[in-house]
Amino acid sequence: MGSKGSFNRNYLRMKKHNFYAGPSILPEFTKKMTAEAALNFAETGLSVMEVSHRSKEFVAVMEEAQNLVRELLHVPEGYSVLFLQGGASLQFLMVPYNLMNKKSAYLNTGSWSSKAIKEAKFFGDVVEVASSKDANFNYLPKDYTVPEDADYFHITTNNTIYGTEILKEPDVNVPLAGDMSSDIFSRPIDVAKYDVIYAGAQKNLGPSGATLVIVKDEALQRVDRPIPTMLNYKTHIDKGSMFNTPATLPVFACLQTLQWLKEKGGVEGMEKINIEKAGLLYDELDRNKLFVPTVPNPEDRSRMNVTFVMAPDYTELEKDFLDFATQKGMVGIKGHRSVGGFRASLYNAMPYESVKALVEVMQDFEKNK
Amino acid sequence: MGSKGSFNRNYLRMKKHNFYAGPSILPEFTKKMTAEAALNFAETGLSVMEVSHRSKEFVAVMEEAQNLVRELLHVPEGYSVLFLQGGASLQFLMVPYNLMNKKSAYLNTGSWSSKAIKEAKFFGDVVEVASSKDANFNYLPKDYTVPEDADYFHITTNNTIYGTEILKEPDVNVPLAGDMSSDIFSRPIDVAKYDVIYAGAQKNLGPSGATLVIVKDEALQRVDRPIPTMLNYKTHIDKGSMFNTPATLPVFACLQTLQWLKEKGGVEGMEKINIEKAGLLYDELDRNKLFVPTVPNPEDRSRMNVTFVMAPDYTELEKDFLDFATQKGMVGIKGHRSVGGFRASLYNAMPYESVKALVEVMQDFEKNK
Repeated sequence: MGSKGSFNRNYLRMKKHNFYAGPSILPEFTKKMTAEAALNFAETGLSVMEVSHRSKEFVAVMEEAQNLVRELLHVPEGYSVLFLQGGASLQFLMVPYNLMNKKSAYLNTGSWSSKAIKEAKFFGDVVEVASSKDANFNYLPKDYTVPEDADYFHITTNNTIYGTEILKEPDVNVPLAGDMSSDIFSRPIDVAKYDVIYAGAQKNLGPSGATLVIVKDEALQRVDRPIPTMLNYKTHIDKGSMFNTPATLPVFACLQTLQWLKEKGGVEGMEKINIEKAGLLYDELDRNKLFVPTVPNPEDRSRMNVTFVMAPDYTELEKDFLDFATQKGMVGIKGHRSVGGFRASLYNAMPYESVKALVEVMQDFEKNK
Repeated sequence: MGSKGSFNRNYLRMKKHNFYAGPSILPEFTKKMTAEAALNFAETGLSVMEVSHRSKEFVAVMEEAQNLVRELLHVPEGYSVLFLQGGASLQFLMVPYNLMNKKSAYLNTGSWSSKAIKEAKFFGDVVEVASSKDANFNYLPKDYTVPEDADYFHITTNNTIYGTEILKEPDVNVPLAGDMSSDIFSRPIDVAKYDVIYAGAQKNLGPSGATLVIVKDEALQRVDRPIPTMLNYKTHIDKGSMFNTPATLPVFACLQTLQWLKEKGGVEGMEKINIEKAGLLYDELDRNKLFVPTVPNPEDRSRMNVTFVMAPDYTELEKDFLDFATQKGMVGIKGHRSVGGFRASLYNAMPYESVKALVEVMQDFEKNK
């Protein structure tokens, strides 16, 4: 009991490195400001959780968050920025409801793409232009043709489970629709190529419960089917994301992260750091004899979610490594059951030092074998 | 500047009485525990905002919250308890999608009922059995007939804007569907009479972003239309509200309020206090010559939202009273624009002392006139 107790105490005191895939690591600034606002928001003497969303204090939060999204992503004129609820999963439905007249095209790069395709089929003809399912989604399809009469071409830019990422907008003749839940704000993007971009907040933006949507106003003229009020982007555009009560605390926390991001040099500054962090870990995976990355082609590898397994000769060490890393303060590195092995998520808020700590753990483990 | 500065400092230091209609007052316990968990959740060393919803720590939160809802509302066997996103507004759509085969009946007691009716019309024949629109919703219709072939009869149990409340389930021959966003947990209810109960969290439960749904499993067999995944109750029942990432911090905060509620004697204990609080304010409205309640029939008056206006001879004092009350620390008492005047929301977390403080302000104001 004594030694177990002291182990527990030491473990509790130990610096934790948060590699969760989502909800996931947030900046210290976001956590501190949110904890403060949970008690006293904007000097109201009230919690951010108990202030009307129509109060001038909260309206300012919503407006500043929308403006910072515009500024940081260089959103062109003619786009609306919304903070909704329901996560990317509800967007799988709202995107075709609002933007697909008769036909749309989807690239299938994993579980989330597949789910998006399933919902789009409620609304018409869905062309799956290519899929990497044949290799458990461990690569990005390159040779495909998007039908020119498709209303949009949907891509999942980062595949959290399988560790692939589309780092550059594909060159196609129709507008893009992008699920960017797990890589938004990690690098510059060309918003003008998209009719819609959406992202659950819980990776690079804030806590779960808020969902960012950036939609081209003109694209909403394509469809004339009746759309239920809450599923209609126009409802939320007309009311500035205040048609119904938004998730006030999650939006407040998103604003803190956006302010932190601006301070850190925006998405341009973040991309540099993200390249360094991912490079450090992929280099170690290529060097360390015990591990192999699950995505063979370096061009397809995600900077956000680094997925890896034990090398063929060392598969029996999987549980040992998980235990060893956990004892050293690594949290959330168990891989998704669809891939197995390990996954280290290196979102914006993850410091370089934590990636270095993981690499050292991998090196220490290798030395002892 | 000096005197304005010292006024501001005094105002900032002053005890605030939070009468917002929603998002609205929460227990000190909920605020304190949530602020702590925003920094260090369940001794993980991580924020509740940055821990996976699949972690054992968060799964325990979700399960305990669902169990406490069952315990406190005495939910019978055969019902599922869900924490979803999207607020009551998304339930206006999900209820008929999942529960209305061909016909449903609705009682129109205000803006929220009207919005629910609008969405139901997407799915079939909606019978509005009665409406109090003729008197700006200042009473509850009593004489109406619900068609026996309606799949359910929908009521908005508390009308936040108009200050009316259906305190006892109507005696009808079809199952009920209840929007209880603003009076859930304020009194005992007979869940067995309902096919579905839903409530946005942001009145008596927690912060906005979480939505409680209690649905009778058997009732879900009525409809065989295809339902998009995220709008299908079965999706969320099968996955224990974890089909997609739930709003983790809002659900955590709801759990804290449920624990506080249990400690305070549950909904039975809460009803006693709520009767006292509402009684204190309505008695003052009946006595004070400056004010009149907007709901004439005492039986129809809400315990949660007390709406009142200046008496006919004193209408010019409206702004004076708002300023006077604001200076005394009363927050959020301006009435909704549809009714005008004032609204004091007396949700569960509102202490008796705050209602007394408001009554004293009304008496002080009367003395000075």
